Amino acid sequence: MIFHNQNKNVDLTRLRCLIQLFFSCIAFLFYTQFFAQNHPSLVLTKEGVREIRSQLGKLPLFDASVADAKKEVDAEITVGIEVPVPKDYSGGYTHERHKKNFLIMQKAGVLYQILGEEKYAVYVRDMLMAYAKLYPTLPLHPQTRSYARGKLFWQALNDSNWLVYVSQAYDCVYDFITPSDRAILERDLFKPFADFISIGSPQFFNRVHNHSTWGNVAVGMIGLVMQDNELVDRALNGLENDGLPEGMKDSDGGLIRKPGQKTGFLANVDEPFSPDGYYTEGPYYQRYAMYPFMVFAESLQNVRPDLKIFDHKNGILIKAVYALLNLTNSDGEFFPLNDGQKGMSYYSRELVSAVDIAYLYGGKDPSLLSIAEKQGRVELDNSGMAVALGVKNNLQKPFEKKSIDLSDGPEGKDGGVAIIRNKTDGNELTLVMKYASQGLSHGHYDKLSFSYYQNNKEILQDYGLARFVNIEQKGGGNYLKENTTWAKQTIAHNTIIQNETSHFGADFETGNQFSSKKYLYDVTNPKVQIISATENNAYPGTSIHRTMALIQDEGFEKPYLLDIIQLNSKTANQYDLPFYYFGQIMSANFAYEKSKTLEPFGKSFGYQHLWKEGSAVLNTANAKVSWMNEGSFYTLTSVTKPNDELYFVRTGANDPNFNLRRDPGIVFRKKNAQKATFVSVLETHGSYSTVSEFAKNAYSTIESVELVYEDANYISVAIKTKPGVTSLFILATKNNKATQKHRLEINKKTYNWVGPYYKTTIK
Amino acid sequence: MIFHNQNKNVDLTRLRCLIQLFFSCIAFLFYTQFFAQNHPSLVLTKEGVREIRSQLGKLPLFDASVADAKKEVDAEITVGIEVPVPKDYSGGYTHERHKKNFLIMQKAGVLYQILGEEKYAVYVRDMLMAYAKLYPTLPLHPQTRSYARGKLFWQALNDSNWLVYVSQAYDCVYDFITPSDRAILERDLFKPFADFISIGSPQFFNRVHNHSTWGNVAVGMIGLVMQDNELVDRALNGLENDGLPEGMKDSDGGLIRKPGQKTGFLANVDEPFSPDGYYTEGPYYQRYAMYPFMVFAESLQNVRPDLKIFDHKNGILIKAVYALLNLTNSDGEFFPLNDGQKGMSYYSRELVSAVDIAYLYGGKDPSLLSIAEKQGRVELDNSGMAVALGVKNNLQKPFEKKSIDLSDGPEGKDGGVAIIRNKTDGNELTLVMKYASQGLSHGHYDKLSFSYYQNNKEILQDYGLARFVNIEQKGGGNYLKENTTWAKQTIAHNTIIQNETSHFGADFETGNQFSSKKYLYDVTNPKVQIISATENNAYPGTSIHRTMALIQDEGFEKPYLLDIIQLNSKTANQYDLPFYYFGQIMSANFAYEKSKTLEPFGKSFGYQHLWKEGSAVLNTANAKVSWMNEGSFYTLTSVTKPNDELYFVRTGANDPNFNLRRDPGIVFRKKNAQKATFVSVLETHGSYSTVSEFAKNAYSTIESVELVYEDANYISVAIKTKPGVTSLFILATKNNKATQKHRLEINKKTYNWVGPYYKTTIK
Repeated sequence: MIFHNQNKNVDLTRLRCLIQLFFSCIAFLFYTQFFAQNHPSLVLTKEGVREIRSQLGKLPLFDASVADAKKEVDAEITVGIEVPVPKDYSGGYTHERHKKNFLIMQKAGVLYQILGEEKYAVYVRDMLMAYAKLYPTLPLHPQTRSYARGKLFWQALNDSNWLVYVSQAYDCVYDFITPSDRAILERDLFKPFADFISIGSPQFFNRVHNHSTWGNVAVGMIGLVMQDNELVDRALNGLENDGLPEGMKDSDGGLIRKPGQKTGFLANVDEPFSPDGYYTEGPYYQRYAMYPFMVFAESLQNVRPDLKIFDHKNGILIKAVYALLNLTNSDGEFFPLNDGQKGMSYYSRELVSAVDIAYLYGGKDPSLLSIAEKQGRVELDNSGMAVALGVKNNLQKPFEKKSIDLSDGPEGKDGGVAIIRNKTDGNELTLVMKYASQGLSHGHYDKLSFSYYQNNKEILQDYGLARFVNIEQKGGGNYLKENTTWAKQTIAHNTIIQNETSHFGADFETGNQFSSKKYLYDVTNPKVQIISATENNAYPGTSIHRTMALIQDEGFEKPYLLDIIQLNSKTANQYDLPFYYFGQIMSANFAYEKSKTLEPFGKSFGYQHLWKEGSAVLNTANAKVSWMNEGSFYTLTSVTKPNDELYFVRTGANDPNFNLRRDPGIVFRKKNAQKATFVSVLETHGSYSTVSEFAKNAYSTIESVELVYEDANYISVAIKTKPGVTSLFILATKNNKATQKHRLEINKKTYNWVGPYYKTTIK
Repeated sequence: MIFHNQNKNVDLTRLRCLIQLFFSCIAFLFYTQFFAQNHPSLVLTKEGVREIRSQLGKLPLFDASVADAKKEVDAEITVGIEVPVPKDYSGGYTHERHKKNFLIMQKAGVLYQILGEEKYAVYVRDMLMAYAKLYPTLPLHPQTRSYARGKLFWQALNDSNWLVYVSQAYDCVYDFITPSDRAILERDLFKPFADFISIGSPQFFNRVHNHSTWGNVAVGMIGLVMQDNELVDRALNGLENDGLPEGMKDSDGGLIRKPGQKTGFLANVDEPFSPDGYYTEGPYYQRYAMYPFMVFAESLQNVRPDLKIFDHKNGILIKAVYALLNLTNSDGEFFPLNDGQKGMSYYSRELVSAVDIAYLYGGKDPSLLSIAEKQGRVELDNSGMAVALGVKNNLQKPFEKKSIDLSDGPEGKDGGVAIIRNKTDGNELTLVMKYASQGLSHGHYDKLSFSYYQNNKEILQDYGLARFVNIEQKGGGNYLKENTTWAKQTIAHNTIIQNETSHFGADFETGNQFSSKKYLYDVTNPKVQIISATENNAYPGTSIHRTMALIQDEGFEKPYLLDIIQLNSKTANQYDLPFYYFGQIMSANFAYEKSKTLEPFGKSFGYQHLWKEGSAVLNTANAKVSWMNEGSFYTLTSVTKPNDELYFVRTGANDPNFNLRRDPGIVFRKKNAQKATFVSVLETHGSYSTVSEFAKNAYSTIESVELVYEDANYISVAIKTKPGVTSLFILATKNNKATQKHRLEINKKTYNWVGPYYKTTIK
């Protein structure tokens, strides 16, 4: 209700109020059939709050999180309420202030419920009222870079973040706020806010993308609090008519919508998640989207249990949490596939809530408790309390990350990401091989690329994105130009580049149509774990077949990585294969020239961002390069042919604003080849301590790597160690049936086996 | 006794034996007045062993170290004895094997004493007998790079390492070995070994250098075991006549001896250590030399207490341990002054023994126990037991590293190294300013240079050495060519370079004659800690005065570093001032050009190893550059004049074998200046988390830095913050008396103060 003191308007206002009240009553009667609960009802419930209060002081993990939240919120209450007129990009003052406001409001609301202290409700109410005063005055945000500008923030995306959190705060203090104030808030703030990010921003709201998920959930959450079924329906199913032209793109070059595209929250669950729970944009964005997915699912489960949201698509939301946890290195950091900022991990707030919710609504898996324990904090809701209780009762079990092959695409038919792990004596080697689809607007052009880890350390890196998220000095904290010109390009990845041109010519529409195909994923033998996949569309007329195996073999200190790439083209081409290592070159078994002055490695498709530091023309059967990084040695032994070339490169060319790191790489080049085969073996070995100054096992164990056989149906590689033991690996390249019998003669010796590959040792 | 079975020689041999026996008896009677104790008597004593045995199983730290040693030695006993014919440089098989042998023998000897298990004595005896068989057959080591080749190793230095450790092993099993075997060992191995590294290698033995310390101690230790007073005297006082030509140099370009040079262990204590315990070569080599210094001192204290070695030069050996502990960052890693390999720390085995011995023989300081506890292991001798007992009884107190000024030179008159620390709220900033002497052959040409740390992290680095110690692939693990052409050169350090020429023209003899002079070290006010020093010889005709202050000021999140360099020359010169930062440039307040192709920054004196990545001609009063590294922001604000130049550089040019890292720097350049003043302020601020993606306090607090006054006697800098608070710093540059009254008018305001500097805030 509104009681303005400006006399002239009082009568009219009262009348409006009465009419509103009448319709509100009608609406209330209608909605109660769907909305059975009182407030709070989203992430907290009345029943849950009672339980939480009864456990206060008994669950260390929960109590610690309450204490953290209290400390943070109390400090902000002391600072006072600041609701500045929007002005800045991310990283700037107004952006960070509004961001802080929504995070603090959500916590304050929860604290009000848990601790029953009125000051928290007062704080939320007063800040909401300040927003209700500001919001109607706001034009579009003054910063113009986004395809969908917000009002509080430069992107409607951030406005949606705000509403997702603030809906929870409002839910918590709903009963505390007078009906008249609620009416103001809903009329001047929440309803127009929800309308603006949906009806007012269809290009943002009505697509399948992490942005839209936030938008959908924002509208849905506030709809649930306001018991506005129309908003909830809009959230679940999208806008019926959005008037968007086909082929429209966002600021990152992402397609807004495909013909016949379903929209809304349910479409955003159905489509980007594969049946294995892999989110097509990659783990960094999956993490980002996980919060709205899970918090809305939890809310729906509480308010609309009839929807059985956690059972949707065979329980895909819970599966997605597991997929995400598996997409991390030994420190819990996500593999930076596609646009991913390195260092983001399962310690993020989004994963705290995701793990807690997955625990409570996914069958109380005790292995999730061990992750929650590492996170050291829980969500301040029913799910967090369940987790804290489990940890208190010592129910946790280790979360064992095993090798896993995650399919991509709504039906799991658009390639995938294979993660192959070998953990021996506390040393974990992890191969991440990407043979997925484009990954929407955040995808990179890196078919059949890979990265490789030793525990938490990158041996061969995926560059990740070119962006400093939320650091204003760096292009407002947004994507940098170099993200397009370097990070997305094929040469920025450990995969094949034909004729110095990116896959699909770096054309999004083309790339978006195709995915690589799995040929073989076999980890049944823990000592020979294989992923093999093909790509026939990145370069029309050229087929690429890459097979990678993590092999634990006799005579080797640690498992080695075998990498085979077979190329077959209708035309003769140049092929480049980069390996982006870290550390310092120790030795090479070939002569190379270091450049006296540095020139860019090429002109376009990312080549312009590499300095050509050195080069070699190879004339040996094997090129061997060793390097050391953080106390470990690595040796890459590659099969080469006369006149194969090798380049030492480093990022940083044509980088006017120091936006790129200076990271090294080795590029193998074969010229004028119609068919070409790249074979490499990467050893991880030895150690060096700067304290003991002992160098252990600093040399490669390999005497030679030989491509001993290759025809249309088979390929075979022999790896001979210095003590003279030879490992033979044979792959049937055209028949991946597990039951198929094979017979092959190599060097006058006949091999018989069953299944797509054979591995033996010859002493 | 020797009983060869070759008949013809038997009689002669017997006669020789009898004569030897006779003289041995005479010698024994003579020596017993000096050598009162039985075996073991060096680092272990009979009394100490009894005490240790009685405490076994009661002192966790000691027991753990026994268990570690046992595990290591037992494994080697299983492997069996290997005494290969010497062949390799460090990092190679024979080098590493012989190194392992001496380390294991020492441990096996100690285990024999402590555990009383004969197998350890047998292992030591058998290996020693194998060495006694091999040694007489050995020519000089086949690798020729050293100025003083060894026989087991490529350097006599490593041979000496061997003997220092093996003497202890021999001492432990002395009574176990039969007299006849002892005679063989002493005749065929120990005596010729000691003679070879002393009389046979005077250029190695008879100098003041860490090499010689090892040589002296090796000869002294075996002398103590063999009760050979002549060897002990040779160790303590050097060779009387060495026949070395003056001006002779070692392989690193170090001078072998000065005219009138004293030699031997006592000279090596007297000369390189300053009265504050700073070792002129720097902490890395001090650490290396600390083991022989301390272990020989301990042995002398046990066998020759009359020498009162721990009281020598006011207890300098104990002081040296404290100096060394103070020369570390928050992780215990030594500041890499001169030739220092980064990462070496007080966790090294040399510091374990040094700390233990300093504890037992230096008054049982409980703060040393906290270091020992971090080290997690103790020396298996009396000192280690004392430490383990102290830790068991919870006597340890924190070792507080405070600001400290360590003088250099035998009398403390050759400049020094100031370490200024500010620890606030768990954040420690450390300035390491070097105004020392040349540092012998391992010195760099970096007068008035500095490095700067945030906790364990380098903000501005000292490059350290160009070497991969003991990694054979990298030049046999030895110093690389780039150590001379880059690491030692002035441009590799954060200090002034005139006319692109290193200090003293990088001439060792010249540099060796001079040291910088302290002007002021004042840390009485913990919020304004100052080091100020002058250098008048690096460039004849040019005086350099550098003043650095770590200031904790109102309005700043963290202390900032004020750096003032005043140059005054008889001629007009070009001056370069580099800052070697780490991380990624965030922003600059001036336009700069990034180079399209990279050229070396210059032709010689290390400039040839820098790539010129970008440049700017400055036209503002202040140049401001911000960067981010590992989650912290840094901003350098410098006073500039029109046409001052700035270069972005990076190491790695003219580096044919990837021997250099690729580290960035910013170089300020003033051209054609007879007088010049560089003023910079470096702020440490804010944080960025890749998990929360929050950037806090990412911007500089400084509005402007102004040189508000400068004449022959005073200089004054005003630092104005964005909120408008101005800090004024005034230094009297010609009068450092603490009691001097000063009066100065700056911008029509008069300042009165007492003492060399004044600091005030104007709001």
